[in-house]
Amino acid sequence: MVTEDEAMCRAIALAARGLGTTSPNPVVGCLLLGPDGEVVGEGFHAYAGGPHAEIVALAQAGERARGGTCVVTLEPCNHTGRTGPCSDALIAAGVRRVVIAVDDPTPVAAGGAARLRAAGIHVATGVRRQEAEQGNIAWLTAVRRSRPYVTWKFAATLDGRSAAADGTSQWISSAESRADVHVLRSTVDAIVVGVGTVVADDPQLTVRDLRDGTLAIKQPLRVVVDSSGRTPENARVRDAAASTWIVTLAAAGTGPDGRVDLNTLLTGLYARGVRNVLLEGGPTLAGAFLSAGLVDRVIGYIAPKLLGDGRAALVDAGVGTIADALELDFTDIAQIGGDLRFTATLRQKPSDHPPLKET
Amino acid sequence: MVTEDEAMCRAIALAARGLGTTSPNPVVGCLLLGPDGEVVGEGFHAYAGGPHAEIVALAQAGERARGGTCVVTLEPCNHTGRTGPCSDALIAAGVRRVVIAVDDPTPVAAGGAARLRAAGIHVATGVRRQEAEQGNIAWLTAVRRSRPYVTWKFAATLDGRSAAADGTSQWISSAESRADVHVLRSTVDAIVVGVGTVVADDPQLTVRDLRDGTLAIKQPLRVVVDSSGRTPENARVRDAAASTWIVTLAAAGTGPDGRVDLNTLLTGLYARGVRNVLLEGGPTLAGAFLSAGLVDRVIGYIAPKLLGDGRAALVDAGVGTIADALELDFTDIAQIGGDLRFTATLRQKPSDHPPLKET
Repeated sequence: MVTEDEAMCRAIALAARGLGTTSPNPVVGCLLLGPDGEVVGEGFHAYAGGPHAEIVALAQAGERARGGTCVVTLEPCNHTGRTGPCSDALIAAGVRRVVIAVDDPTPVAAGGAARLRAAGIHVATGVRRQEAEQGNIAWLTAVRRSRPYVTWKFAATLDGRSAAADGTSQWISSAESRADVHVLRSTVDAIVVGVGTVVADDPQLTVRDLRDGTLAIKQPLRVVVDSSGRTPENARVRDAAASTWIVTLAAAGTGPDGRVDLNTLLTGLYARGVRNVLLEGGPTLAGAFLSAGLVDRVIGYIAPKLLGDGRAALVDAGVGTIADALELDFTDIAQIGGDLRFTATLRQKPSDHPPLKET
Repeated sequence: MVTEDEAMCRAIALAARGLGTTSPNPVVGCLLLGPDGEVVGEGFHAYAGGPHAEIVALAQAGERARGGTCVVTLEPCNHTGRTGPCSDALIAAGVRRVVIAVDDPTPVAAGGAARLRAAGIHVATGVRRQEAEQGNIAWLTAVRRSRPYVTWKFAATLDGRSAAADGTSQWISSAESRADVHVLRSTVDAIVVGVGTVVADDPQLTVRDLRDGTLAIKQPLRVVVDSSGRTPENARVRDAAASTWIVTLAAAGTGPDGRVDLNTLLTGLYARGVRNVLLEGGPTLAGAFLSAGLVDRVIGYIAPKLLGDGRAALVDAGVGTIADALELDFTDIAQIGGDLRFTATLRQKPSDHPPLKET
């Protein structure tokens, strides 16, 4: 038998297997324990339109779920979308107890816990909440802010350069770091770059195996922020490997700086079901996102090199003096090949936290 | 009883206690084991002119050293300087066996192992050599190159800025990082800065307790690289807290770039007994040292902040294209307060390794 805490750890790990394929839905993992505490079913939400984690686990468990406990990373839904309400399915299966890590913040799906309680089922919430929130941070942040979660990724030298004086930049980071970026891309719904990066580097912006070029089955949407429509006709981002959205002023409107309005861009992506965005550059677009308060997380690949000249990793972030520096907190530091990879989250200013309308 | 390997670990740890106070001598640690393998004496070289590690340990052990083993991080010296030869003292004390981590590379002091062997003592070398070399890396590098070991230390944001657009830089790094810098300063013989840093920040460049300002007893030499003699008369580096050398063109000669010749500067410091230099900036002086191949190690304090504008941590390092980037290897990554501290060593090009004349 396993404890409910152990079961939640396993459910959180299962949930992560859905990262990159469930949007606009969250990732969810679920374990079902029989009355004796043995695991009788487990599942995760694998893709939008597919069965929810609870339904997968219930199908495995069958009659063994009766009188047992459901351990699930997110409050079971209470609405009929492409699938029926999970709360009803749990009631019908005769589970006695439901253990939830995180409440569902969306008005349309919430209410599952209340419905379960009304049916006489004991409901506990908040078990391993922090870990489960981290596992679902992109989706949770997106639904709370009505815009996708944005991770800015960059590669630079120890002195913060992303290209040398003559413009050369291939390769600043190691092969291992570049492979790691493809793993990162596989967890997002869209990759955003500025047209300057397209013109300078002509990246394909796909998820692929770097050894043989094999494309992953699911590809993020490629988004080029291109105010004046400069993306070349033969740019690799226009190939058939993935969908692409070239965002011009006509498509997204003009922001306060005369370029593409980034709030409108993100709202448009959200409406398309995008919950998790990877911003890959260049330095000017990153500065525009940061100065608009639209970056949630930064992942930097820092190569043990020094240049002393060349393009800075970041420009024009709207900061004029040290007291106004954008502040972050490191959440992870790792060595990837010979490089250092840090992950840091932006400290949110009070104004960045609008109260949730839906709760 | 302890093994010889355990004793060497302890000796290496003891040696480190002398860092910052032994130059121009190395740091050395020593354990004496009696015939039964028990520790009968231990010591380290604490300051130039004071007793060597072996002598301290022998004084502790007295007659118990007879028939025992001396475990020492550096080959015992064979010359009479301010103290007599340690090899003779070990022979006189009747030790049976001497275990050495690192051979002495200096022609004047070397020969101790040969002398011990000639006296019938069994000598083993190379035990924990790599760790002991790291513990003595500044001195070993200095005597091998006839110039001090140079560590470039800087503080910057995630995007490689060491000041904001308006020039403000206090404080980029955390209080914990700043305290760590004072620990680092306490291990070196000299702190080198450019006159630009003196004019801009007026640092005192002392080792002190940041809580109450108490000065450490031993202070590194303060060195200001000041081609044209711009150091203000009332600059804090001129105060009585430590010795100061203002290095003008007249003092050190003109280098190929028309500024102070850095090779001559380092040779001059070596002649003054300086073996370990901390280069604290600014970005132009760091670039000059790096492009001259005169930096051995880089320690960076990276604050989780973004500026997007302002002074770069490094300029003019003589690199024009990515293939010529200066390459390093990370040797340590740590979190200090909220900051990240990395330590990395410069990869030496073949031309940087002149063969040792003395061996």
